[in-house]
Amino acid sequence: MALIGPSVMCADWGNLQENMEMLERGGVDFYHFDIMDGSFVPNFTMGPDLLKALRPYSGKAFDIHLMVQEPERYIGMFAEAGADWITVHAESKVHLQRALQYIRKLGLKAGVALNPSTPLSALDYVLDDLDHVCLMTVNPGFAGQAFIPSMYRKIEDLRKVIDASGAPIDIQVDGNIGYNTIPKVIECGASMLVCGTSSLFNSADLEANALQLIEYVNKQSRKTS
Amino acid sequence: MALIGPSVMCADWGNLQENMEMLERGGVDFYHFDIMDGSFVPNFTMGPDLLKALRPYSGKAFDIHLMVQEPERYIGMFAEAGADWITVHAESKVHLQRALQYIRKLGLKAGVALNPSTPLSALDYVLDDLDHVCLMTVNPGFAGQAFIPSMYRKIEDLRKVIDASGAPIDIQVDGNIGYNTIPKVIECGASMLVCGTSSLFNSADLEANALQLIEYVNKQSRKTS
Amino acid sequence: MALIGPSVMCADWGNLQENMEMLERGGVDFYHFDIMDGSFVPNFTMGPDLLKALRPYSGKAFDIHLMVQEPERYIGMFAEAGADWITVHAESKVHLQRALQYIRKLGLKAGVALNPSTPLSALDYVLDDLDHVCLMTVNPGFAGQAFIPSMYRKIEDLRKVIDASGAPIDIQVDGNIGYNTIPKVIECGASMLVCGTSSLFNSADLEANALQLIEYVNKQSRKTS
Amino acid sequence: MALIGPSVMCADWGNLQENMEMLERGGVDFYHFDIMDGSFVPNFTMGPDLLKALRPYSGKAFDIHLMVQEPERYIGMFAEAGADWITVHAESKVHLQRALQYIRKLGLKAGVALNPSTPLSALDYVLDDLDHVCLMTVNPGFAGQAFIPSMYRKIEDLRKVIDASGAPIDIQVDGNIGYNTIPKVIECGASMLVCGTSSLFNSADLEANALQLIEYVNKQSRKTS
Amino acid sequence: MALIGPSVMCADWGNLQENMEMLERGGVDFYHFDIMDGSFVPNFTMGPDLLKALRPYSGKAFDIHLMVQEPERYIGMFAEAGADWITVHAESKVHLQRALQYIRKLGLKAGVALNPSTPLSALDYVLDDLDHVCLMTVNPGFAGQAFIPSMYRKIEDLRKVIDASGAPIDIQVDGNIGYNTIPKVIECGASMLVCGTSSLFNSADLEANALQLIEYVNKQSRKTS
Amino acid sequence: MALIGPSVMCADWGNLQENMEMLERGGVDFYHFDIMDGSFVPNFTMGPDLLKALRPYSGKAFDIHLMVQEPERYIGMFAEAGADWITVHAESKVHLQRALQYIRKLGLKAGVALNPSTPLSALDYVLDDLDHVCLMTVNPGFAGQAFIPSMYRKIEDLRKVIDASGAPIDIQVDGNIGYNTIPKVIECGASMLVCGTSSLFNSADLEANALQLIEYVNKQSRKTS
Repeated sequence: MALIGPSVMCADWGNLQENMEMLERGGVDFYHFDIMDGSFVPNFTMGPDLLKALRPYSGKAFDIHLMVQEPERYIGMFAEAGADWITVHAESKVHLQRALQYIRKLGLKAGVALNPSTPLSALDYVLDDLDHVCLMTVNPGFAGQAFIPSMYRKIEDLRKVIDASGAPIDIQVDGNIGYNTIPKVIECGASMLVCGTSSLFNSADLEANALQLIEYVNKQSRKTS
Repeated sequence: MALIGPSVMCADWGNLQENMEMLERGGVDFYHFDIMDGSFVPNFTMGPDLLKALRPYSGKAFDIHLMVQEPERYIGMFAEAGADWITVHAESKVHLQRALQYIRKLGLKAGVALNPSTPLSALDYVLDDLDHVCLMTVNPGFAGQAFIPSMYRKIEDLRKVIDASGAPIDIQVDGNIGYNTIPKVIECGASMLVCGTSSLFNSADLEANALQLIEYVNKQSRKTS
Repeated sequence: MALIGPSVMCADWGNLQENMEMLERGGVDFYHFDIMDGSFVPNFTMGPDLLKALRPYSGKAFDIHLMVQEPERYIGMFAEAGADWITVHAESKVHLQRALQYIRKLGLKAGVALNPSTPLSALDYVLDDLDHVCLMTVNPGFAGQAFIPSMYRKIEDLRKVIDASGAPIDIQVDGNIGYNTIPKVIECGASMLVCGTSSLFNSADLEANALQLIEYVNKQSRKTS
Repeated sequence: MALIGPSVMCADWGNLQENMEMLERGGVDFYHFDIMDGSFVPNFTMGPDLLKALRPYSGKAFDIHLMVQEPERYIGMFAEAGADWITVHAESKVHLQRALQYIRKLGLKAGVALNPSTPLSALDYVLDDLDHVCLMTVNPGFAGQAFIPSMYRKIEDLRKVIDASGAPIDIQVDGNIGYNTIPKVIECGASMLVCGTSSLFNSADLEANALQLIEYVNKQSRKTS
Repeated sequence: MALIGPSVMCADWGNLQENMEMLERGGVDFYHFDIMDGSFVPNFTMGPDLLKALRPYSGKAFDIHLMVQEPERYIGMFAEAGADWITVHAESKVHLQRALQYIRKLGLKAGVALNPSTPLSALDYVLDDLDHVCLMTVNPGFAGQAFIPSMYRKIEDLRKVIDASGAPIDIQVDGNIGYNTIPKVIECGASMLVCGTSSLFNSADLEANALQLIEYVNKQSRKTS
Repeated sequence: MALIGPSVMCADWGNLQENMEMLERGGVDFYHFDIMDGSFVPNFTMGPDLLKALRPYSGKAFDIHLMVQEPERYIGMFAEAGADWITVHAESKVHLQRALQYIRKLGLKAGVALNPSTPLSALDYVLDDLDHVCLMTVNPGFAGQAFIPSMYRKIEDLRKVIDASGAPIDIQVDGNIGYNTIPKVIECGASMLVCGTSSLFNSADLEANALQLIEYVNKQSRKTS
């Protein structure tokens, strides 16, 4: 059964409490926060104060996606602000194993994110150190891009690598995950869906959107398994 | 008469629309948005999507303070998102005159921000190109720090420089601007106050806070002029 | 049949128009422009104004090799200046798939260049997004170095990867491509030759050099196929 | 008498030898080469190979303006390629006194360039170590911009500083130096003019342009002195 | 037979001559110097002056591990200071093949170091250019960390790659190499051991420590071969 | 009376304990440690482990000169390792007032170092926040350079600035401070001398060197005051 998480950057910034309350009633599994630094990706979005402010409105996992250079400098800050999962990019300036180890020492779940072009060999010696891999299915930095078709094959390839390793690692997909891409990403092996404008946020009634999406995803998951 | 603007990063992130509506009723003059990149300052806060989302709730000036390296890369993006004023740091990697010129070409007001330690000589040849100078009265990057006492002298020194030049340039002060610092910063020559946790946000009733603060500031201004 | 292109940085800088006219008469297939930034490689060479100035003298493809950090910042500038093909380095600070996608959206052909030490896994998930791969057969930054022998194996390996994928991708080789290396690089699978001081520019009569080289290459190509 | 030097980046790139021969006949005093790295300024232009290629066509000073980060890494390379004067930017990543000292140890003349917004205090303790100051009168990186009016005052201010020091330092001005700006820059104290599209290159007959410009400049200089 | 080398950063900094004399009598094979730059790793340790000062006390190989960005800038400096082997990190800002080639041209042995998470594909096309690979078995930057278990598999994998290539390349292991890890790293294929606080420096009598360790390692090596 | 401190990088690296014992007997006032990062200056020297190792041999002040980018990342590490004074460069990537404030909050003395070319305006608004200014009288990065003559004037100028401010700030001079430069630097206003190869380390008997130097300095100081 694939987990579903709204991309917070697609919510209504003026009414985030209300948005979260609707999503909670709709039953989403986690909240995905994209942190951008203007250097790893050419945009800015949000920071730790946002986590702190929204933390009271949900007991679900806060999933922090650090699209930043030198993510190790910020892991502690986001942990304190309420993060449950922290994901760092293999392509950033980072000592990857050290970052993952550090996230886990803080009691959180650790993930590695890969840009569309990054080979899976980046994971060869860190499968013991991570809980999930976030495959970017668009290029990071902006909402509203098209799913890159070769990413289906990448999900399949990663599924095989993980299954061969025996490690209990989730595959998160991030980028244009909606009704048209969900069946195939689940079939290929994805188990965590970051959902934005093309699904959870395609109308203002977030509760209804969530209920509908979860039902749809569950059907797809049943077909697959 | 000094202008008053809330620091948006001090508002209630879960209810920004409501917060802005209270501040509008209270009569604030502008909204100050701090953009941080994790490199120029060690923190992250918000990005252009926030401006777009909040733009419908006020016709007042959106004042963008770019605490980022290479601000020229982001001026266009913030202009499109709804900025009215854009301020860049003299200490960042920037061609300062080019950035100011570019902001003005976009029809916006241009400002230079100076860290506490930066000498005023940074402004020697850009007085023609700017509408306001933002003097940081704490070190940028975090809310809740103490006002640095030597900044009073810096405001006075800058007031003299500006008066000597004859240019109609505002002095904005940013950092721990509250009831205890306002009388003196106004006396020294500040004309734009960025207000955060020590004034506009010191209770949940932002409308009342704003009304009270504005009355207080007007009294101080009258004393001074 | 392998395509032949002069490395413009090996031409006579004082008489580039005349040089190009000779090369045109000689029948070269494309012009290769090496752009260096002093950071990705420790040298400087040329910029977009050169393309603009030389564009009237040939209708052949202008092939731009960006040996620069953050090539995405410069793709638009070179496209406007007259580029037909643009190649970015996988090792630079770049979102590789995004850069390739952007080059193609501008109507140009997109390539990835790999330094001698870079593994072919860098291409695992971008074969759909590129028209050619530029294998550096010397280290980039300077003319006049010796061909690195292990690069023959790399060309062969890449040939197999491309053939297996079925994608119509050219292999460009760049670095000490001359009479002594051409037979083997063609045999290994190269189909685009960047030619400098060891072939097209080994005497002042560029027309004769080109005619002779093309005949030689064609013979090699016939042997191979 | 103010010295006159063409900005090589404004010449006809296809026929640089011929261009230089015309300029030689016209009697220019030096050749100004702008080196750009895509980081200190957002453009690329030329490198040391160009100097080497053009060196035989003139015995006049080759004046190298390093618009690059970490210029110390490149001083030796340009000295070997034929530079006579080397100018580094005070705003780049540089140990300024060390760079100037190094240039002079190589037997060349050393200069400091200042962006329009940079205060003259940058020169406070290096007047002993330099032969000329290059005041940018537009922002560096592109040809064809408008002269920034506050730069007249900056030239005057620098003139006073130099005169007070007694050091034999030239003031070079660079950026939109043409018939409309020359009288005033000379009056303010400039003694070296970098001339581009608005003067030396405003028609194809570079010899005539040079003769006319030199005559004009000499008249202005006579008026001033 | 595996070679043994003390990590100089674990010695008694106040008495390095005496420490080396003890280690010499104990019979160590090489001295390992960790150079840190505060950017590639978040620490500082030592520089070329230390090599020069200690060079007279031993004729054994000085093995320099450059945990620095842009190692090519420092290879010459360490060669002059007395280095015999120089190792650069594949993850640093480096043209890897060029760096290795340069080290060998200086008459020294060349190595590549890999952080724990770095895949072995980084070595695909440089096996001809190197004498040893340094596998980090902890994250670089600090003494006293725990051996990362997945590194045993990495040593084995590398052993197979090297054996298949036929190249005479040593595998150096660096990080928590002591009595508890030595048997298995040797069994997996390591042939050079960098020894620190968990072996050579676990008591003040370095001569005795070295004698005991060498005997132990020799026994392990006999078992393995 | 000027304080005298040996530059530890000029000592005998093989016998630092013994060296310090001699210097202690000779009566030096502080120990100066130069930390270099290969980026702010092109060299490497030592790190916090050295401080820890030498801390037991002296109760005198350990004076840490951070010739590094982003010194704020390392202040805590050096404080824990035994620093008493910490000096950061105004030209490094730093929030200067924040760094000084942080050093003082740790209970240490705070200093700002200025490269030879840096204007004194860098200190305009931090005089309240510092205990000493370190004027580099050579360019930082290497021992054995010649004193830059214009630095005498800089010391005088700074003396006047400090005296006018009334703040109890020491002027430290660093770079070729020996018998030939001491009289004049003291006369100009220096009160802390960093002494290297041209004085404290000009023979192997460091105790005698120190005694002689101190006597000499005291005489000079008496003349001056």
